[in-house]
Amino acid sequence: MEKMWSGRFSASASSLLDQFNASIMFDRELYREDIEGSLAHAAMLQSRGILSVDEIEAIRGGLAQVREEIEAGSFEWNISDEDLHMAIEKRLTALIGDAGKKLHTARSRNDQVAVDFRRYVLRKNLEIAGQLKTLMQTLIDIAGKHTETLLPGMTHLQHAQPINFGFHLLAYASMFKRDIDRLLSSRQRNNVSPLGCAALAGTPHDIDRNLTANALGFDSVSVNCLDTVSDRDFALEILFNISTMMMHVSRLSEELILWSSYEFGFVELSDEYSTGSSIMPQKKNPDVPELLRGKTGRVYGALMGLLTVMKGLPLAYNKDTQEDKEGVFDAVTTAHISLEILNEALKTMTVKPENMLAASKKGHLSATDLADYLVERCGVPFREAHFITGKAVARAEALGIDLSEIAYGELKAIDERIGEDVIPHLQLAHSMNARTSSGGTATVRTLEQIVHFENYLKELDL
Amino acid sequence: MEKMWSGRFSASASSLLDQFNASIMFDRELYREDIEGSLAHAAMLQSRGILSVDEIEAIRGGLAQVREEIEAGSFEWNISDEDLHMAIEKRLTALIGDAGKKLHTARSRNDQVAVDFRRYVLRKNLEIAGQLKTLMQTLIDIAGKHTETLLPGMTHLQHAQPINFGFHLLAYASMFKRDIDRLLSSRQRNNVSPLGCAALAGTPHDIDRNLTANALGFDSVSVNCLDTVSDRDFALEILFNISTMMMHVSRLSEELILWSSYEFGFVELSDEYSTGSSIMPQKKNPDVPELLRGKTGRVYGALMGLLTVMKGLPLAYNKDTQEDKEGVFDAVTTAHISLEILNEALKTMTVKPENMLAASKKGHLSATDLADYLVERCGVPFREAHFITGKAVARAEALGIDLSEIAYGELKAIDERIGEDVIPHLQLAHSMNARTSSGGTATVRTLEQIVHFENYLKELDL
Amino acid sequence: MEKMWSGRFSASASSLLDQFNASIMFDRELYREDIEGSLAHAAMLQSRGILSVDEIEAIRGGLAQVREEIEAGSFEWNISDEDLHMAIEKRLTALIGDAGKKLHTARSRNDQVAVDFRRYVLRKNLEIAGQLKTLMQTLIDIAGKHTETLLPGMTHLQHAQPINFGFHLLAYASMFKRDIDRLLSSRQRNNVSPLGCAALAGTPHDIDRNLTANALGFDSVSVNCLDTVSDRDFALEILFNISTMMMHVSRLSEELILWSSYEFGFVELSDEYSTGSSIMPQKKNPDVPELLRGKTGRVYGALMGLLTVMKGLPLAYNKDTQEDKEGVFDAVTTAHISLEILNEALKTMTVKPENMLAASKKGHLSATDLADYLVERCGVPFREAHFITGKAVARAEALGIDLSEIAYGELKAIDERIGEDVIPHLQLAHSMNARTSSGGTATVRTLEQIVHFENYLKELDL
Amino acid sequence: MEKMWSGRFSASASSLLDQFNASIMFDRELYREDIEGSLAHAAMLQSRGILSVDEIEAIRGGLAQVREEIEAGSFEWNISDEDLHMAIEKRLTALIGDAGKKLHTARSRNDQVAVDFRRYVLRKNLEIAGQLKTLMQTLIDIAGKHTETLLPGMTHLQHAQPINFGFHLLAYASMFKRDIDRLLSSRQRNNVSPLGCAALAGTPHDIDRNLTANALGFDSVSVNCLDTVSDRDFALEILFNISTMMMHVSRLSEELILWSSYEFGFVELSDEYSTGSSIMPQKKNPDVPELLRGKTGRVYGALMGLLTVMKGLPLAYNKDTQEDKEGVFDAVTTAHISLEILNEALKTMTVKPENMLAASKKGHLSATDLADYLVERCGVPFREAHFITGKAVARAEALGIDLSEIAYGELKAIDERIGEDVIPHLQLAHSMNARTSSGGTATVRTLEQIVHFENYLKELDL
Repeated sequence: MEKMWSGRFSASASSLLDQFNASIMFDRELYREDIEGSLAHAAMLQSRGILSVDEIEAIRGGLAQVREEIEAGSFEWNISDEDLHMAIEKRLTALIGDAGKKLHTARSRNDQVAVDFRRYVLRKNLEIAGQLKTLMQTLIDIAGKHTETLLPGMTHLQHAQPINFGFHLLAYASMFKRDIDRLLSSRQRNNVSPLGCAALAGTPHDIDRNLTANALGFDSVSVNCLDTVSDRDFALEILFNISTMMMHVSRLSEELILWSSYEFGFVELSDEYSTGSSIMPQKKNPDVPELLRGKTGRVYGALMGLLTVMKGLPLAYNKDTQEDKEGVFDAVTTAHISLEILNEALKTMTVKPENMLAASKKGHLSATDLADYLVERCGVPFREAHFITGKAVARAEALGIDLSEIAYGELKAIDERIGEDVIPHLQLAHSMNARTSSGGTATVRTLEQIVHFENYLKELDL
Repeated sequence: MEKMWSGRFSASASSLLDQFNASIMFDRELYREDIEGSLAHAAMLQSRGILSVDEIEAIRGGLAQVREEIEAGSFEWNISDEDLHMAIEKRLTALIGDAGKKLHTARSRNDQVAVDFRRYVLRKNLEIAGQLKTLMQTLIDIAGKHTETLLPGMTHLQHAQPINFGFHLLAYASMFKRDIDRLLSSRQRNNVSPLGCAALAGTPHDIDRNLTANALGFDSVSVNCLDTVSDRDFALEILFNISTMMMHVSRLSEELILWSSYEFGFVELSDEYSTGSSIMPQKKNPDVPELLRGKTGRVYGALMGLLTVMKGLPLAYNKDTQEDKEGVFDAVTTAHISLEILNEALKTMTVKPENMLAASKKGHLSATDLADYLVERCGVPFREAHFITGKAVARAEALGIDLSEIAYGELKAIDERIGEDVIPHLQLAHSMNARTSSGGTATVRTLEQIVHFENYLKELDL
Repeated sequence: MEKMWSGRFSASASSLLDQFNASIMFDRELYREDIEGSLAHAAMLQSRGILSVDEIEAIRGGLAQVREEIEAGSFEWNISDEDLHMAIEKRLTALIGDAGKKLHTARSRNDQVAVDFRRYVLRKNLEIAGQLKTLMQTLIDIAGKHTETLLPGMTHLQHAQPINFGFHLLAYASMFKRDIDRLLSSRQRNNVSPLGCAALAGTPHDIDRNLTANALGFDSVSVNCLDTVSDRDFALEILFNISTMMMHVSRLSEELILWSSYEFGFVELSDEYSTGSSIMPQKKNPDVPELLRGKTGRVYGALMGLLTVMKGLPLAYNKDTQEDKEGVFDAVTTAHISLEILNEALKTMTVKPENMLAASKKGHLSATDLADYLVERCGVPFREAHFITGKAVARAEALGIDLSEIAYGELKAIDERIGEDVIPHLQLAHSMNARTSSGGTATVRTLEQIVHFENYLKELDL
Repeated sequence: MEKMWSGRFSASASSLLDQFNASIMFDRELYREDIEGSLAHAAMLQSRGILSVDEIEAIRGGLAQVREEIEAGSFEWNISDEDLHMAIEKRLTALIGDAGKKLHTARSRNDQVAVDFRRYVLRKNLEIAGQLKTLMQTLIDIAGKHTETLLPGMTHLQHAQPINFGFHLLAYASMFKRDIDRLLSSRQRNNVSPLGCAALAGTPHDIDRNLTANALGFDSVSVNCLDTVSDRDFALEILFNISTMMMHVSRLSEELILWSSYEFGFVELSDEYSTGSSIMPQKKNPDVPELLRGKTGRVYGALMGLLTVMKGLPLAYNKDTQEDKEGVFDAVTTAHISLEILNEALKTMTVKPENMLAASKKGHLSATDLADYLVERCGVPFREAHFITGKAVARAEALGIDLSEIAYGELKAIDERIGEDVIPHLQLAHSMNARTSSGGTATVRTLEQIVHFENYLKELDL
């Protein structure tokens, strides 16, 4: 079919090209941004006398109708229209005639793509941050109930020191806080209007870029148009920020999967957020955290994809950059549903403190406390204390008991300097509560951390 | 809604889980493979007396109807059915009753996923190889017309030595040949039936895996079931093979973009496969090769995505691997349309030999010939000859001419040993045709290469 | 050999394990951070009465000697010491005895790794930002000399509209400004002290984390220790920020390569930053931008590598994260040398305005101006103007001239409404200077942009 | 310093360029390949009368001395020599004079890079395959001892069906077999000599490419020189093949980490291949599998890096491709040490059958057997049997016992059709041995698989 740019062409585009080249199948996601951008542009054109009052009224009416048609599902999307921008313009012109064509004055498709996609990404930064806020609150709520629930703190997936479950969950609250900060920082850095850059070099028309920037919620206008039309940093940033966030989600998911296993048994996911097996009737599968962990791959892929696309492109706009959108849309959709379902799965999960406690009694979790005792009470240099404790652990292993259960005599036999007052230090709750340094696991510190994160959320304007 | 596996569950799955967990939106792509797999499984069950003749007749009839409904678009896809396999089974049971349920004997969903997806990938290996065969033929056809068309052979995007355009295009034929070889090698390596592995460990039912393998076109049955149900190597291989192929496509695309520029002007893409600008009426944009170059990113992303998914997964099946399909489907679709449109764009492209020739006269392309002359005729060691030629080039630059246009006297002034018989060696066609070593650019060698590739294609059974 | 943690082990580590496990070959890069961290920790221990004045004096003296030995190259690095931290501690203890062992009180290796690596990354954020500042100044300086130098502004690598070369270079200044902003934002977000988190849960010792944080230049202390010991977000951020920066560098490099070609001829790289060919004496190869473009791949790889490492790791520390350092070190080193050599290559490059001007006269760069004329002077709707201009371009092509050279009669024949006053609008300098919208290419706007970026640099405290 | 190609240059290369551009720091890894390539080239030149007998003798002597110097560590590597090839040539010429210079006749550095790097990769394909053969044998040996050792077969990290530990290990043997097949297939596909392609287009010298190909162990010569000089498919293939192999290693590592935890306790890594904690004396950490899992990221990164480098490069050689080597060297080194240490860790690991058995008694592993019983003995459709079994599992859970321990009366109460003969079917060993389908876990099948893999290894010519 005849394209808007077909003046100099002797043959028309092949239908294969239409199919290959068109973005209309996916960029319709941006219809709101496109219509709002057109309204802002039209208002500016009118303020400069380029459009008459009648014309702008016609445009407003026409765009309102287009929006209605799209939202009602009655808008006709046609692949030969290439993209959202052309489709809307064509329909608008059909509805209101020449005024529709004049809307394109002092504006190019590059302008439209740039402003629509950027505003979409800016909005999504906020929406994802909002979901992370909800998720943080859920973690804090559960943490608040478990500031005295002992479980083995691990490194290398080996029991290391006793901690409380609230403290463990707050580690994730801490990660998601950084994710929010990154999203908001990216939004602020990129909240710059591209509108008015035209094809690549600005326009001779007497436009007012600040007016449209203001109307569309941008903080300022971009400084150099050549850069602006091919800048996709904001898209890379959201892909990286979602990737890092999903990496955090994958870590929590790994733990939920471990904790749901027979071997750990620390939590049980609700029936609502579990699935069964078609062949093994006894199975209860943690599909949700597994899929969450798996979806990390897809957002990493989207990041890698766009980094690859942008590599080595000369200025300014190249068609390659049309490949920016699907990856971002997919990553954003993945982020939305992942955060929503993770939040629900956590809220409906059953915590099993008794299993956590039983596990804490394995692995000599208070070994560090023995070493610390040696340092503090007996003046033994740390490295030597570490060595002595190693021998005590080996003795407990030989006896088939946990270090927290060892008799004083056994310890004294290993090192004369150990006094009987060591025994309380080897109790698990004592050990956990002994870690009172700032950021530590002691219940009193965990409670402080909860206050810290709650204050953070309170001040978040989302 | 109630799931097939819901016996032990007290609460039913949330609709959010349905939405998150379901693969039915995309795995319906595999409906043919799923129905064929069921037919083969049913026939085997009947041969073992597990299904009666009546039951298998009912199953065949029912599956035929399901296939018709799917192809007619009347099949009802329901997200709560989770996946293609469940949806088909449910519909089959609705159509034919208990026989539909018995079809699941000695088979798990893991089996079905594994066999359907593997057969899809195996088929796509062949289909993409077939398209590459067509593309190679197109390159060979154009090459055949340009075995004497001079253009500057480049390294570092600098003019290096004169070559012919046919020779240049055959470099891509050579790459695509390797791509075909990789796809076929992958197909052969992975043509192993997973059917009969059941959930992870085989089945106590007296099945015949060779029978179903045969019926479905596999060469053999897999050796270890635990491996089989979580093996995605075949999927990684097609993603890597498409990535490498698209890398080759991106290189040809980069050249088409360069060649279409005003600066090069070596080719002109047809109007059918070019686009214009909405703001600059004079533009003719090479959108097709630009998008091809850009789409490289998306397939790299899919490869990276699946590599990430598979990293660190314990045996056997984990839900994470459901994330394998969308990336592969997208990469395959990208490969199909990319190869189709590249082939068309090449076939309709206009080659401009006159511009190539004009470019060949810049950059002292016969400098190596002067050096070779010094070595062969004057017995000068190569490194010294290289140095002398450098001086001759500098002289030509100072005179504002190409080395192929330099007067004998100028050369003699640089080195006494140079004889007047050097002059023909500096002619461009002579220079190109002098490179007669095997694989070289001389027309006679280029023609040999064409024969080589044509023979390869003839023997390809695709 | 015997490890510090070998108390409970009956067999000693294999030498293969030493080789596999050790990080000492690369983490010695952090020796300054490690010694500074130990000094801060020691001072804090002394303030709390855990170390005596004599002990801290001994530690200070010992660490000073270790530092000297390392910087003099006389320090003995031994793979069986595993890592930098152990090696320094061992040497310190050899030098000063038990006080060296006591330094480890209330501190774990996780602590040391976390504080050393984080401070390294924070420092590198600043150093790279500083190099980008220098590079921006170079671009601004060259831009300032070329605000009236015409060249063809391109989209799709096709001539689009006339711009000036200064404006083109400022697009890169704009990108590098965003890179600086990202680095500084990352530094600020992550300037949080991990010291005092001990193994994972804090310590029972009465430490003062704020004291050490202050001494080491951190803004605050981390909130949750479990998170802190396995947090690598700061490392991912610098890898992403370098990746995006190198993507920008790859785009400028691509243009330098194009511009250095015979076909473009817009610039010539200096002999100092070019190389020749071992076989083709006439070649002058733009190796520098080619390698810069290539090195983009290596930093993308490092980013992807660490994202992969972190995926799905349970809390807290896992040995996998030891894989964080080499990628970051390599990316940082790549960033340093890339920015340094790019800056030099730009400063010594020769710009060729005459070739840029000649190129501007091809491709009907003032076509948009004709369209704009039709809209503004003749009241033609933009889409129609676009169509008419397409016909004018086709006419110029048929005549073998540029649109800027067309006779008035030809235009009038195409559309009656075109007046003779159109002619000046078709001149290239006029066309460039007509684009006076904010951010546009007009010389007056380009000069404003220079002021904008110079003010930005002035206010940068680097 | 003065470069070999400096004839036309007026200024010499900066030392910064030397540092940036040089590959000599890493490409010396290829010294053997380079010297062997030169020897083959020299012999061919002599057979064609281009070198005299005296000259070739001199070259052979000189290269032997160079090789000795390199291997003795006395060779002087100088960054200003740029690369290995130049360094060797320079030294050779210093040793033997003009004959050293003549060696470069009919050969370019592109030739040398291409032949050296390709031969290195081909060799490494074999070496890594050889290591995988050793690893497979280790897995088979351990599997042979554990064909009756019960452990819970898992999907979704949930207990699914009882399997034997030998069967589990053979899943990895199966993966590593595919890895070997991929490496050998890649070697065969790429065993094509690039030597004689010269800079890009062949050479006018009367060379014999088959002679050098033969001498260097290649199967054939490359068909198109322009393709050959920039072909890096063989390098991408080894990176992909190592990535997939390390993905398999990461899965086994994840399991070793899980199995080493207190919760699982299925294996204990030897002291030789474990490490301790500097702060927690009781810890025994599985650093080896953790690092193996982590190193997956680094090889993925190398693959992604080279894919990025190659994207969009025009023909033929571009300096970007110098970035191919470090990633490949690093991935190969990683593969070598990873396979070596994994093999040792497995050989010295203690398997704990009693813990595996205890775990098998949790999770109702024989639930599928109950379902199968219902289908086969009672004629219940599978889906219904699945549902009934779900109820039985729920009952066992309510009773706090495993399904294998349930009383007959309980089952009968759930479904009248269940006979008392169901009881033996619920025993774990019976359940495992019931899975006798091809590829299944029954001991008899596991033993067959061992024979299968042993035969494969016997026929492998490595």
